[in-house]
Amino acid sequence: MSNRSPLSGFKKDDDSVVWIWNYVGNAKIKIGYKIKKVLHHEQSEFQQVSIVEMDGFGRVLVLDGTPQISTFDGFIYNEMISHVPIVTHPNPKKVAMIGGGDCGNAREAMKYDGIEKIDVIEIDEKVTEICRKWLTPPSVFEKDNRFNIIHCDGLEWMKENDEKYDVLVIDRPDPVGPGKKLFQPEFYQYVFDRLTEDGIAVFQSGSPYYNQATLKRTVQQLQERFPIVRTYLVSIPLYPCGIWSFTAASKKWDPLNADLTKLKHQSTKYITPEVFQASFALPKYVQELFDKAIEES
Amino acid sequence: MSNRSPLSGFKKDDDSVVWIWNYVGNAKIKIGYKIKKVLHHEQSEFQQVSIVEMDGFGRVLVLDGTPQISTFDGFIYNEMISHVPIVTHPNPKKVAMIGGGDCGNAREAMKYDGIEKIDVIEIDEKVTEICRKWLTPPSVFEKDNRFNIIHCDGLEWMKENDEKYDVLVIDRPDPVGPGKKLFQPEFYQYVFDRLTEDGIAVFQSGSPYYNQATLKRTVQQLQERFPIVRTYLVSIPLYPCGIWSFTAASKKWDPLNADLTKLKHQSTKYITPEVFQASFALPKYVQELFDKAIEES
Repeated sequence: MSNRSPLSGFKKDDDSVVWIWNYVGNAKIKIGYKIKKVLHHEQSEFQQVSIVEMDGFGRVLVLDGTPQISTFDGFIYNEMISHVPIVTHPNPKKVAMIGGGDCGNAREAMKYDGIEKIDVIEIDEKVTEICRKWLTPPSVFEKDNRFNIIHCDGLEWMKENDEKYDVLVIDRPDPVGPGKKLFQPEFYQYVFDRLTEDGIAVFQSGSPYYNQATLKRTVQQLQERFPIVRTYLVSIPLYPCGIWSFTAASKKWDPLNADLTKLKHQSTKYITPEVFQASFALPKYVQELFDKAIEES
Repeated sequence: MSNRSPLSGFKKDDDSVVWIWNYVGNAKIKIGYKIKKVLHHEQSEFQQVSIVEMDGFGRVLVLDGTPQISTFDGFIYNEMISHVPIVTHPNPKKVAMIGGGDCGNAREAMKYDGIEKIDVIEIDEKVTEICRKWLTPPSVFEKDNRFNIIHCDGLEWMKENDEKYDVLVIDRPDPVGPGKKLFQPEFYQYVFDRLTEDGIAVFQSGSPYYNQATLKRTVQQLQERFPIVRTYLVSIPLYPCGIWSFTAASKKWDPLNADLTKLKHQSTKYITPEVFQASFALPKYVQELFDKAIEES
């Protein structure tokens, strides 16, 4: 989930309507989300955690004033960061997810019977507690024995454990504040080391429009370590400018050659076999970012 | 080009920075675009026409306070509304474009040597005059004899002429105010009648996220008249929520079976043969809109 702004917060306008302001691209764009109701608001050890009701997005998790995931369009983020690596790997048994304490990504992983273990590593216990109350269907927590939630720092967890995973989902925030360390070169190496010999990881890699440096650096770092690196795009209405990127880094299995049979009869709202494949077709201006990155390196 | 808001306008904030406010989804979302400089601003017979300089988007055409097209991301809209029908038709000679008086769509059509005539029908002469000065490269107007610009009402032009076209590009605004008539059932019939026997048209069909009724109605109207109707999606960072739809309606040629050779070596910044195909892979929540529309009808 993305956490973009140090400036933003809740504000009342002249008509006493509450808005959340999200500043992006060095505050060149400012997005106001009209709040119907603040359902919950508290300061955790790490951040301000809020649940609000918005027309057009339903219930929304807001961290430090930045909308993260909504009940109306959250399935897009959850499905696209989870199903792509799980489907690409022909037989994933163990899945770990860094971030995503609302457990929306984990819910998607639970749809695959072959998976034996789903670990979610979320730094902020309050996020999970509050999302459990307001956002995530209780079934996610109650019915699935494969699912474990571990509340600790993602980087520390990476360093201090040896267990290997077939799939790692890196649902990191933007490279500001405490999230910054999940963008350091050493982090990519830890991810590589925690993957099985044919493992695959997916990283949240920023907006390909207003945050191109993040995407370019992610791809460069991964290309130094992994034989297969593939960026794919999604359209997330809640996020500024809509277009968003994820990058898959794989030791053996290429998403472009994935057997999509497993996806055919999945209960999803965004991804289909066709959408899976289409998301890897990059607009020329995005593809050129990488060609340029290779020239510069 | 889209013209969404009756409320919006230029406003100074407390620090004297000028913003444009764009209200969408019945004002549930409010987008502020920070203005570096207002380069031009005037009231035409039809609307307020402005050219502004924005960080992150470059020069932007603004109509009645709503950003329409920018020098940084305008190629996305221009390419995707133009190349798709031109490439789908195996041999288009005559192309007409309703709206798009900035002539960015026409510039894309000019890239195809086989085309013999490109007519642009733009109601507002001021839009063309001002874009010619500030936005569109002069080469568009100066070097191409195939290109004609006609300043009149698009619906009237449809009704009062008999000439038939292989490709019609309907770059209409949103269904508010004067643009409303370009969404009436009779308009779709006029488009059908002005196409050659194997002609194809493309319509701007709104946001598939916050403007689903417009998209559904467009598809329904077209399915009553055309044997082939295909919606495709693009990501336009300037537009609220990013995701946007176009719908192709064709008498004979199906975009899904198009020969994409012509596109291979085109000088473009967004579309490629792969992006052309990928844009027709609809997320399940969009596909379900149409399935539901069929049930309801």
